[in-house]
This record gives sequence, structure tokens and C-alpha cells, in this order.
Amino acid sequence: MPDTPTRVTLAAIAAEAGVSVATMSKVLNGRTDVAAATRARLEEHLARHGYRRRSATAHSDTIELVFHELEASWSMEVIEGVEQVAHDAGMSVVLTVSGDRHSPSADWMDGVLRRRPAGVVLVFSDLPVAHREKLRSRGLPFAIVDPAGDPAPDVPSVGSANWSGGLAATRHLIELGHRRIAAITGPEDMMCSLARLDGYRAAMGAAQLPVEPDWVRFGDFHPSGGEAHARDLLAGADRPTAIFAGSDLQALGVIAAATSAGLSVPGDLSVVGYDDIALSRWLSPQLTTVHQPLRRMGAEAARIVLRLADGGTVDALRVDLATQLVVRGSTAAPRHA
Amino acid sequence: MPDTPTRVTLAAIAAEAGVSVATMSKVLNGRTDVAAATRARLEEHLARHGYRRRSATAHSDTIELVFHELEASWSMEVIEGVEQVAHDAGMSVVLTVSGDRHSPSADWMDGVLRRRPAGVVLVFSDLPVAHREKLRSRGLPFAIVDPAGDPAPDVPSVGSANWSGGLAATRHLIELGHRRIAAITGPEDMMCSLARLDGYRAAMGAAQLPVEPDWVRFGDFHPSGGEAHARDLLAGADRPTAIFAGSDLQALGVIAAATSAGLSVPGDLSVVGYDDIALSRWLSPQLTTVHQPLRRMGAEAARIVLRLADGGTVDALRVDLATQLVVRGSTAAPRHA
Repeated sequence: MPDTPTRVTLAAIAAEAGVSVATMSKVLNGRTDVAAATRARLEEHLARHGYRRRSATAHSDTIELVFHELEASWSMEVIEGVEQVAHDAGMSVVLTVSGDRHSPSADWMDGVLRRRPAGVVLVFSDLPVAHREKLRSRGLPFAIVDPAGDPAPDVPSVGSANWSGGLAATRHLIELGHRRIAAITGPEDMMCSLARLDGYRAAMGAAQLPVEPDWVRFGDFHPSGGEAHARDLLAGADRPTAIFAGSDLQALGVIAAATSAGLSVPGDLSVVGYDDIALSRWLSPQLTTVHQPLRRMGAEAARIVLRLADGGTVDALRVDLATQLVVRGSTAAPRHA
Repeated sequence: MPDTPTRVTLAAIAAEAGVSVATMSKVLNGRTDVAAATRARLEEHLARHGYRRRSATAHSDTIELVFHELEASWSMEVIEGVEQVAHDAGMSVVLTVSGDRHSPSADWMDGVLRRRPAGVVLVFSDLPVAHREKLRSRGLPFAIVDPAGDPAPDVPSVGSANWSGGLAATRHLIELGHRRIAAITGPEDMMCSLARLDGYRAAMGAAQLPVEPDWVRFGDFHPSGGEAHARDLLAGADRPTAIFAGSDLQALGVIAAATSAGLSVPGDLSVVGYDDIALSRWLSPQLTTVHQPLRRMGAEAARIVLRLADGGTVDALRVDLATQLVVRGSTAAPRHA
């Protein structure tokens, strides 16, 4: 094992930094009664030596779950998955909303170090390298629920098969006889948007159907984005007969735009969503959609951090769970196929 | 102040019980390395003396939030309200799903005592007297978010104006010209169901409109309950021209049943929901509903426990926030008024 790092003791690092072991322990435990400048300097010493607290260190009976924002129909399924695994392990979930897509705040990090959870599950957001290093030096495992499909290379993450989902949604519309099929995907800077869109393009290409440039839209995964793009798409004379809406919330917006334009779903327009939120089967018409296993994604990430907290290892850094087309009432054959 | 209790020290209670102060402290802190029988016996001593830990005792930077179940469109708003108050106070939220409508488990209680949160917010569930006594003896404040409208007499709770909501929903339908109006409320054993139904009855009575016995139904606050009752209500020849659906989820079920029966909403049937979940304005037609301020109810309960944790007091044990009718597209004048 030539690259096993030499284990440096906390006492040795404290001596090198010219502080007591007690001060060093305070920094490790996120205590704020050490001056910020001193804390930053001592973190550098810890990072330079690659200090790792043994994972056997006692942790509390909580899992930290961090969202950058809460979206009801969507976040709740992830929470339920994490909560179920925590509950089965006799633990509770500490929920934090960071408000920042890119990383939780420094305050949050201090709180985590004080609370000493079994591990951290991040949804959608990522951690800056300095934050990751802090968690690692305290022996706190973490994993990312990454529906966006853009995993950090050295962090365990759980996603789902976005490309296959986009392919299945579009193939279903083609098999019904649609030829003029538009796609409203998510934001252009999210890999899951691009993967779902590429799945759509692959299905259209395989069926030798043209994709008009105007038929490809980038939404915001909220109903308003779906509505605005659909209003535009449905205004033209050569309007599409079907729209792959990229998310269930965008599908709600698409259906609202169609209704406003006097078009019926699925009579005049077929619509496919994505996610399969709990309410999608209770819409009128019931929504045809691609099931994304958000609950299982949360549960799997929680299982990973608990396994790591117990000193175990993960087989693969990246797990992509399968997606599945669910055919309901919002799709039908086009009227003039 | 004749009824101020004499303050008994922990040392005196420990001496009386024949254990060390250290053992007594372990019990106060929810440590499980004291035999269960001993813990139960010492809890009795604490309760008998009405022992109260000073509220100034250091607490962690968390608020405990307990649901008996998570329902996406509904629970998330309460979570957001609590989380916002916690966030503003530099705190995190510990989320527990008890799985039991009546009380969280004994394991949960041990966890709370170990975690020493600033306070506890319970949603919908209640605490047995023994659990309340445990929290009180540790100086841990708690409050109940009580949309059910059935507050415990000596616990701070936050609800909303269910009777007024039922009244406003029904009055709106009467003002549109409806005479045959049915109501599907929630479960018969929840006070909020009865309050909304009584609001409906009051509006009908004030307008001197009859209420056929068959027009009053008890659902389950889920879409399936709304659908089953609506299918039945709409099957008769003298079907109602409007339904007050009791919750937005039940309204989804009512609309599904109407659609299945070939009836259009609002052309053939007007529907009013209750809650104003985030998606209600994105349904087609947009849902007319009664706004229940779930987010503010969660925030208010969190503020109460933080105020109590800081040694403050509450003005009123029960706070009922206002509800408000939101008129959208699912209601219209009846065709043959």
C-alpha cells in the first residue's frame, strides 16, 4: 500500500500550529469560541496533513438533509425516502434549506460540526472543496441526491436515468402516431435537462422525424415556464400535436395554456410530464408521465451515508436508478394522423 | 403568589430516590445507560415534585418538528413556515414522522431529551400527559400546529378559522345562484371537519336553503374519498349543481368523478376546495378554494416555542389565523338557475 497516508495525530498538528489540543478539538467540533482567523489557520493545518478523525467517533442519532429550496410535490418524496431510512435506524432527520443552489452557508457548516450527525445528504446542491475537506477531516460521510445528473467526481451520488426517460416519453408519442412533437425541458444549465432533451432527440432521430428548431424550449421546471412556452408553441398554424413537458409541473402549465387556447387534452394536444408526482394521477385528464423514483433516491443516499458512518464502503460512487413511463389519460392518437 | 410551587433541587430529589445526582442527570438528558425500570421510577419522583429545569439551560440550535404523516402538498407548507423561522434564528429543524396520529414513540422522546432542542412543534398529533410532563421537567417548550381544531386545553396551539372557511365557501356558491349544494367534509372524528360542515350548514340555513341528508358526506381528505362520494352524489337525477369539497385533494377527486360522468366543471358542476395548496391555481380549471395559512401556522408555532425557550410567555394559549376565500375558475353560476 504505497499511497496510504501517514497517520498524523491531533497532538502533533496542534504542536506544529502552536495551540493546545483543547483548542484543536474545539475547531474540530465547530465551536465558535475560537477566533475566526485562528479557526481558518488551524483548518489549513488539518487540511495540509489530511487529518481524518476515526469514523468510530461517537455521532448523534441524526442525518442532516440539505435542500437548496423546497418544492412541495417534489422535495417531499425525497424527504420521505430519507426519513424512512432514518426512522428504521432509530434516527431523526435534521432539515436545512440553504437558499443557495451552490452550497450551504458557513453557519450551517459550523452547526453540522457541533451536531455531529451520522452523515449528510445533500439534494441538488454541491459542496465547495473546503466544505468537503471539513466534513472528511471530522469523519462525517456525505452523499448527494443528484436528480440534475451532474455528479461531483469523488462524492457518492444517486441520480436517475434522465436520457432513457426522455427517450421513453417521446417514443410513446411517436407510437401513438404523432409526428409534430415539441419538447420543453428544464433550465439549459442543468445536465438532467440536456439528458432528457437528448433522449427526445434520439427518439425523433430513430423515427426519422424532423425536429424544428422552434420545438425545443428550455423552461424552469415550474408551471409558469411550461405555460409561457406552450402558449407560444400553440399559437402557430403548424402547431405541434404533442408536447413532452419535461416535468409534471411544466405539464400543468402546458395543459393550462392549451385550455386557454380552446384546445382539449388529449383530443387536440397530447402531453407527457416527468416525475410522476403524487397528484399526477388525480389530474383531469390523468397525466401520462415518466416516473422518477425520488423517494428511492433519497432512501439510497441515506443508506450510503449510514453504511459509511458504520465504517463500510460503497461499491460505486454513482448510482442511477431506472425511470419508467406511466401511460395515463393525457396522451392519445392525433386527430389527423 | 400563594400557589408558586416550592423549588425542589435535583440533589434533594436524587437523595430521596436513593440515587446519585449524576444518575438523575442522565435521566434528565435522556441517556439510555440507566435501566428502564430505574428511569421510570426516577421520572415518577421528578413528576411528583413538579421538577422544572431552568429554561436558561443551554439548548442546541434545533427545533424539533413532528408529523404523524407527511402529505406532500400540505405538510411542506408547514415545514417551510417552521424552517423559515428556524433559519432566521440561525437554527435547523429536526424532522420526525411518528407514524402514529396520537403520539410520537418513546424512542423519539429519548432522542429529544438527548438532543436538547430549543423546543418542539407538533403537527396534528398530541402528546400523552406523561410525555408533556417529561418535556416540562426539562424546560423544553412545545406548541401544536392544530389544523384539526381540537386543541389540548393547556398547550399553546395554532389553528385556523375552519367554521368561517366553510361559511365563506358555501356563501360564494349561494351568491352565484346555486340552490342544490352538497358538502364533502373530512373525517367525522376531526373537529375541523365538523367546523367546516357547520359553516356550510350556517350559510345554507341563513339563505333558507334545504340540506338534503344525502348531501352531507364525510371523506378522508384524500382524492379517493372525494371521488367516491362525488360519483355517488352525481349519479342521482336531482344531482347537486355545486359541491363544497372540504379540501383541495378531495376537490381533485370530485373533478375526476365529474369528468368521468361527462360533466364539465364549472359548466355542469361548481367545485370549491379548501387549503389553497400551491398547485391549486395551476389546475384546469383553476380551483376556487379557501386559503388556509399553513405556512404561517407553522411559523407562528415555531415563534411561540422560541419565545418560550428564551424565557418569554405567550399571550393566548390558542391562536386561530384567518382563512380566506380565493375565487378562481372552478365555480360559476348554475346553467338552469
